[in-house]
Amino acid sequence: MADFIQPRTLKGFRDYPPELMIPRERLLEQARRVYRSYGFAPIDTPALEYTEILLGKGGEETDKQLYRFTDHGGRDVALRFDLTVPFARFAAEHIGKLGTPFKRYHMGPVWRGENTQRGRYREFWQCDFDTIGTTSNASDIETALVIYDLMRALDFHDFRIHVSHRSILNGILEHMNLADGAAAVLRAIDKVAKTPETDVLKEMREKAGLTDTQGMEILGLLKAYSPDLPIGTSRRKMEELKTRYCGISAVETGVDRLEELFDVFESLGIAQHLRLDLSIARGLDYYTGTVYETFLSALPAIGSVCSGGRYDNLASLYTKQVLPGVGASLGLDRLLAAMEELKMLPTTATPAPVLMVQFTPERLGDYQKMARTLRAEGIGVEVYPGAKKVGQQLQYAERRGFKVALIAGPDEFANGLWKIKDLAKREERAIATNEVVKTVREML
Amino acid sequence: MADFIQPRTLKGFRDYPPELMIPRERLLEQARRVYRSYGFAPIDTPALEYTEILLGKGGEETDKQLYRFTDHGGRDVALRFDLTVPFARFAAEHIGKLGTPFKRYHMGPVWRGENTQRGRYREFWQCDFDTIGTTSNASDIETALVIYDLMRALDFHDFRIHVSHRSILNGILEHMNLADGAAAVLRAIDKVAKTPETDVLKEMREKAGLTDTQGMEILGLLKAYSPDLPIGTSRRKMEELKTRYCGISAVETGVDRLEELFDVFESLGIAQHLRLDLSIARGLDYYTGTVYETFLSALPAIGSVCSGGRYDNLASLYTKQVLPGVGASLGLDRLLAAMEELKMLPTTATPAPVLMVQFTPERLGDYQKMARTLRAEGIGVEVYPGAKKVGQQLQYAERRGFKVALIAGPDEFANGLWKIKDLAKREERAIATNEVVKTVREML
Repeated sequence: MADFIQPRTLKGFRDYPPELMIPRERLLEQARRVYRSYGFAPIDTPALEYTEILLGKGGEETDKQLYRFTDHGGRDVALRFDLTVPFARFAAEHIGKLGTPFKRYHMGPVWRGENTQRGRYREFWQCDFDTIGTTSNASDIETALVIYDLMRALDFHDFRIHVSHRSILNGILEHMNLADGAAAVLRAIDKVAKTPETDVLKEMREKAGLTDTQGMEILGLLKAYSPDLPIGTSRRKMEELKTRYCGISAVETGVDRLEELFDVFESLGIAQHLRLDLSIARGLDYYTGTVYETFLSALPAIGSVCSGGRYDNLASLYTKQVLPGVGASLGLDRLLAAMEELKMLPTTATPAPVLMVQFTPERLGDYQKMARTLRAEGIGVEVYPGAKKVGQQLQYAERRGFKVALIAGPDEFANGLWKIKDLAKREERAIATNEVVKTVREML
Repeated sequence: MADFIQPRTLKGFRDYPPELMIPRERLLEQARRVYRSYGFAPIDTPALEYTEILLGKGGEETDKQLYRFTDHGGRDVALRFDLTVPFARFAAEHIGKLGTPFKRYHMGPVWRGENTQRGRYREFWQCDFDTIGTTSNASDIETALVIYDLMRALDFHDFRIHVSHRSILNGILEHMNLADGAAAVLRAIDKVAKTPETDVLKEMREKAGLTDTQGMEILGLLKAYSPDLPIGTSRRKMEELKTRYCGISAVETGVDRLEELFDVFESLGIAQHLRLDLSIARGLDYYTGTVYETFLSALPAIGSVCSGGRYDNLASLYTKQVLPGVGASLGLDRLLAAMEELKMLPTTATPAPVLMVQFTPERLGDYQKMARTLRAEGIGVEVYPGAKKVGQQLQYAERRGFKVALIAGPDEFANGLWKIKDLAKREERAIATNEVVKTVREML
């Protein structure tokens, strides 16, 4: 025993056995289908980049978490920690050839040497989509539509996309003569959901020099234009903002763009999934326009499952070409966790619903022939590899989550029949060979 | 300019822009569909493993190519160089819970710090499928069927799966009293396709102690049972082998298993794609049973595009449980290169065939409504983000490879019409709103 190498994964890393991987693949497939249906094209970039490409792009914390080393050629390299920085590098390198507007999606693993105590993993997948090279509000609106379609494609019906526009809060702070401390105020606002009000006020006082009256006014605003607005009040609240801050162009610009977004959602009959929410202050050093977060009504505490926003310039560190854009990222692991908690995940360890029992090895050609007939109709069939006892094969089928078993021995072949078994109901009957496809389809 | 970080990828790594990524995704999707249709379940493992898991598993060359470093926790870690070693570790860790037989597929990137002069990349994808926990020939046969279906799913019609069984050559060498030198002889045989005959004879003489007469006998055998056999002779050649080496049980066992494989392919009417080929001596320290290589008739020089074989024990380094299995790996990059050379790849940079022209921004809701109608029918539609000149939008559509453009301005909306343009033929006509889906479908 001492000679064996202990089979284990690194701390913070995990294997995906079929029961985890089948839902993850399904989620990725649905996302891919939705992205493509809007004309987003797939790209990929290397897992490893020159460290100078990645360093200093995600803040001090991210720098510390980089998997960084020297390669065989003495190069300082690191594993990517997100898909945005590689996209900025990619865009700077290729946009001349690709042309604008350019719409891409990118799905892949990223790596961060994070503290694993918070239940986070050091390797996880991101699924980003972005439209770059345009400032058009049509792309902001489309971003929200893609989020809506993603959620529906994943069988969520009760969810809300919270939107804001960074200009609105900036304009309000300017109106309050607090423009200089705007960044610090927004950083404090970002903590509202997780921190007691007194602490937020304290931070605004100490970091941005606000009086408590000013701080209370801002917190009051956030409550008045908050995610918990009942359906239908978002439109009225936006009108209110324009009246209240009449003449502040930043507020007007922001609200106008959001109103166009609500217009399109209303004309499509899906505005009940949209909410104005001034408290969204995500990625504050990066986003400059519309911002998005998406919440599941059944599990609000899990946080936003799809978030993003508009930015002024993607690749300013690598090129002088100005590339404005808008995009969002699907929180794959968070969504999977939510779907598990909401019992939305199938509990199967097989991607094929039909098990073909191998009654006798001499008939393997016949088993595979019938299996191929079903496969050609889009029905997955596993042929059991050995001619074990039928009972053992059926046990295997039940354990793996197969739905239907097909069985044929000498008697059935002599009479042109197949035994078909519903594994959940444990009911079995005999049907003619030419009835198999139709019957299996009815049972699935 | 001096302030910009140069946007570049590492030597041996590359970006995948849409025109490369769209075919790669299509290939992965087809492979996934075929694997699943046979009941292979997806798994994934981390990119990073403890170095001790990977080291010494792929030979001296692979060890040198490892991307190996020390992580934040002082662990000796490395990026995986293939998907087989991680699968062995995975199986040792989880097989008790998963049970056998266990069929998995695994697609993902692997990393090797190879010399890039040979046109190889240091990051590339592998697509493996394996059945473990059974010695049944049904799984060997199924492996060949999966290869056949993969090739057909990728639109190849003229290809041949070359098969052999390692027992046959081992039995013959035993019969020639050369069992001791078998490993060295097989290593020499592996070079037959790339090396002059005299060099192969020299290697057999020096490394395995064969006389030139013995060496010539073996080379003669390989030619007699070679890949260039005309269709239909494989069966006769197998009978011949059993007669010639009558009583050598290893030869008989090997041939019997291959004959069962041919039986099933014949009963399915696809035996013209199967060939006996004794010269396949791949992965000689690893494979122990049936071995497979797949060649494109139009491009034989590109080498095997799907290869694999049966092995006695997958995870012997990590567990005492014996896990025999059989599997193969699709050569993704080689296939893509072949498809490019054979002009089988679509030259499009968009996954959506329809471009919706944005004639006027006020009608964005109507454009997105029609786009959604088409998307619901499975037809991808990109709505152009800005209301630029129609000519510019159509230029964009042609450059990206869209097939159809839809255009509607005030006149069309007033009359309930859409202009539809075939971008290849440059023909345009007006159709009624309720005809759009049908007409677009006909044009694609």
